[in-house]
Amino acid sequence: MINIAIMGHGTVGSGVAELLINENGRIEDAVKSQINVKYILDLRKFDNLSYSDKFTDDFKVISDDDEIKIVVEVMGGINPAYQFVKECLLKGKSVVTSNKELVAAKGAELIDIANKNNVNFLFEASVGGGIPILRPLISCLAANEISEINGILNGTTNFILNKMIKDNMDFEDALKIAQDKGYAEKDPTADIEGHDACRKICILAALAFKKHVYPNQVETTGITDITLDDIEYADNFGFVIKLIGSAKKLASGNISASVRPTLVSKENMLSNVDGVFNAISVKGDAVGDVLFYGRGAGKMPTASAVVGDVIDCAKHLNAREYLYWNDGFDSYVETPDESTVLYVNATSDNSSELLESIISLFGEDIKMLRSSKDNSVAFLTNKDTKSKLLSKIKCIKADKIKILHTLF
Amino acid sequence: MINIAIMGHGTVGSGVAELLINENGRIEDAVKSQINVKYILDLRKFDNLSYSDKFTDDFKVISDDDEIKIVVEVMGGINPAYQFVKECLLKGKSVVTSNKELVAAKGAELIDIANKNNVNFLFEASVGGGIPILRPLISCLAANEISEINGILNGTTNFILNKMIKDNMDFEDALKIAQDKGYAEKDPTADIEGHDACRKICILAALAFKKHVYPNQVETTGITDITLDDIEYADNFGFVIKLIGSAKKLASGNISASVRPTLVSKENMLSNVDGVFNAISVKGDAVGDVLFYGRGAGKMPTASAVVGDVIDCAKHLNAREYLYWNDGFDSYVETPDESTVLYVNATSDNSSELLESIISLFGEDIKMLRSSKDNSVAFLTNKDTKSKLLSKIKCIKADKIKILHTLF
Repeated sequence: MINIAIMGHGTVGSGVAELLINENGRIEDAVKSQINVKYILDLRKFDNLSYSDKFTDDFKVISDDDEIKIVVEVMGGINPAYQFVKECLLKGKSVVTSNKELVAAKGAELIDIANKNNVNFLFEASVGGGIPILRPLISCLAANEISEINGILNGTTNFILNKMIKDNMDFEDALKIAQDKGYAEKDPTADIEGHDACRKICILAALAFKKHVYPNQVETTGITDITLDDIEYADNFGFVIKLIGSAKKLASGNISASVRPTLVSKENMLSNVDGVFNAISVKGDAVGDVLFYGRGAGKMPTASAVVGDVIDCAKHLNAREYLYWNDGFDSYVETPDESTVLYVNATSDNSSELLESIISLFGEDIKMLRSSKDNSVAFLTNKDTKSKLLSKIKCIKADKIKILHTLF
Repeated sequence: MINIAIMGHGTVGSGVAELLINENGRIEDAVKSQINVKYILDLRKFDNLSYSDKFTDDFKVISDDDEIKIVVEVMGGINPAYQFVKECLLKGKSVVTSNKELVAAKGAELIDIANKNNVNFLFEASVGGGIPILRPLISCLAANEISEINGILNGTTNFILNKMIKDNMDFEDALKIAQDKGYAEKDPTADIEGHDACRKICILAALAFKKHVYPNQVETTGITDITLDDIEYADNFGFVIKLIGSAKKLASGNISASVRPTLVSKENMLSNVDGVFNAISVKGDAVGDVLFYGRGAGKMPTASAVVGDVIDCAKHLNAREYLYWNDGFDSYVETPDESTVLYVNATSDNSSELLESIISLFGEDIKMLRSSKDNSVAFLTNKDTKSKLLSKIKCIKADKIKILHTLF
């Protein structure tokens, strides 16, 4: 019998408890041993559950109990999760977490502590909810040099953008529906400003390229600026606007990383990802593009990924150098002057001057679209280095200019 | 240093040799040991390669060499691959294969021999080429009860159907292009009749449901009957025709399994899989639908999956009960009378009689489409048990009737 503790009994934590406590022998078959949930840590009281007797509000009960071999951390946030996880690892307990904020901030350090104490620190559920991505990335794609990762990493923003696209609904209304459906928090900042996606691309980049990437190193833009006009323009150009987290290996050995609303070509599978679904596209030198798709959040999908890690831990209680990366450094994440195509949405009261300036800068053949609703014009630039494109765009005679990136 | 042998130097075998021999230290880093390709078994001579000295045409050289710890089998076919693999396993060598025909025919037996000899028998490359699917299926989704798998498992037929759809090209012309591009063999039977997809769904079903499924237990229909009319009708109904391999867990504990051209709803991600790409959709009770997408064939994608397994083997030379299933039995694969919607394409010289009979059987509200080219009519039935639908369809007054399944 393997004793475990679950820290946190919120959405994911209660799902983990249900899967492990109500399991019908399948998990026991897989592990070849019984997994016993000995404690659940939560400050709240849950008196009406069949497993109410397992609750404790005292972390020391868990950390001091040598019988506990695996601890599931599903509290979220950095404090006190960080201190708790660190102490468990130092005391020789493996830790499984779904906490992307913690892994993005402290992953390199916690992995190192786990290795030194010959235990596991696993976090499949921290990216893509129930979608298997971290393990395939490192294990099945081990023969590949990974060059690029692009992903729809946040279901809430994808739901909102999708609502805008399919139902011609503006951002505020779509956000309201996402909140009513429970997809978005009352304070939706972490989702709509891209912070959640940012933490996930940090973890993916760290695993793929073997150095820690800190959230503040990633150029992050949310979706609050995206209008229905942009969505219609994009559609007419053959694109769909998605919030894309991206990380690329550069020739220098460093990487670039960003989270931003991006025009994704309808030829790209990522453009077909609707609703709250997530998808992660990985480019390997041998395999080409591989894509993983599924529910990126939610109680049971995320809990199933946590329990998958618990099963793996229970089968291999000793550390394997499996999920690992080294610490990063300041200059590791660059903003290279890459060759690209940009989407430009320019507004001016003087539309003839606006059009003339665009044509003189980008040529007669440029395909421009005009809104029926306002005095805006949109176009896709030719392909050129970003610096050259930006210096041209600066010369457009417009009152307001919005620039978005593209992904083909 | 870990010595390995590669049996077969065809498309995949030469890719494996290139990845392992020309590797730049990344694989050595992952394994923490050097992988040395000691022998390559092939009856042909390859004199102009940098590694020509490694070739042998004598299997005994490999099987008798105790230094060889891992053997890669990329010869294809059942004989002599089966005898060779079996002997290697019996002699305590781990085997990695991409040979779906072998695994579908002899998987249960070879897995058992591997376990008894404390070595690994790995075959990630046998399904979905370079797409990580087998490992995620068993490891990351371990907490899930898998209920259903649907996949586009053959790139050649997907390319052909895609050509028909996008370029309005008939089957024969599309096949010719697939052959010219090297996607289809001169004798394309294994692809277009569904045999290749059948082997892959056997392997997926075996892993997901833990009992061997033999190819002859799977109702298999190829795509040779699909016409441009069907493709257009499907499009108008909101569907795309794909060759779908499917396996479902039944309430009885047995399973159903099939390979057949299927109308896939445009809402289903599988409908977006174009060209030679493959995709596999897995339904788990906790995670919901998860989809894996990528290149399902080709030299380097498949070779990269083989080498991924070699790396895994090299890191864990002893057997882990990892990929495993038990032997199957005759009545294990059932054809249940499931509730479904069928596509019907009916042709008659007497079109008024045809239409009347359909309306009297399926109701006034049935949406029928008529071809501009011939005297055919197509419609989707209401949802009902397959037996009831078929008995109604039998009463349609038509000269010819084609029935296809649907996937929503």
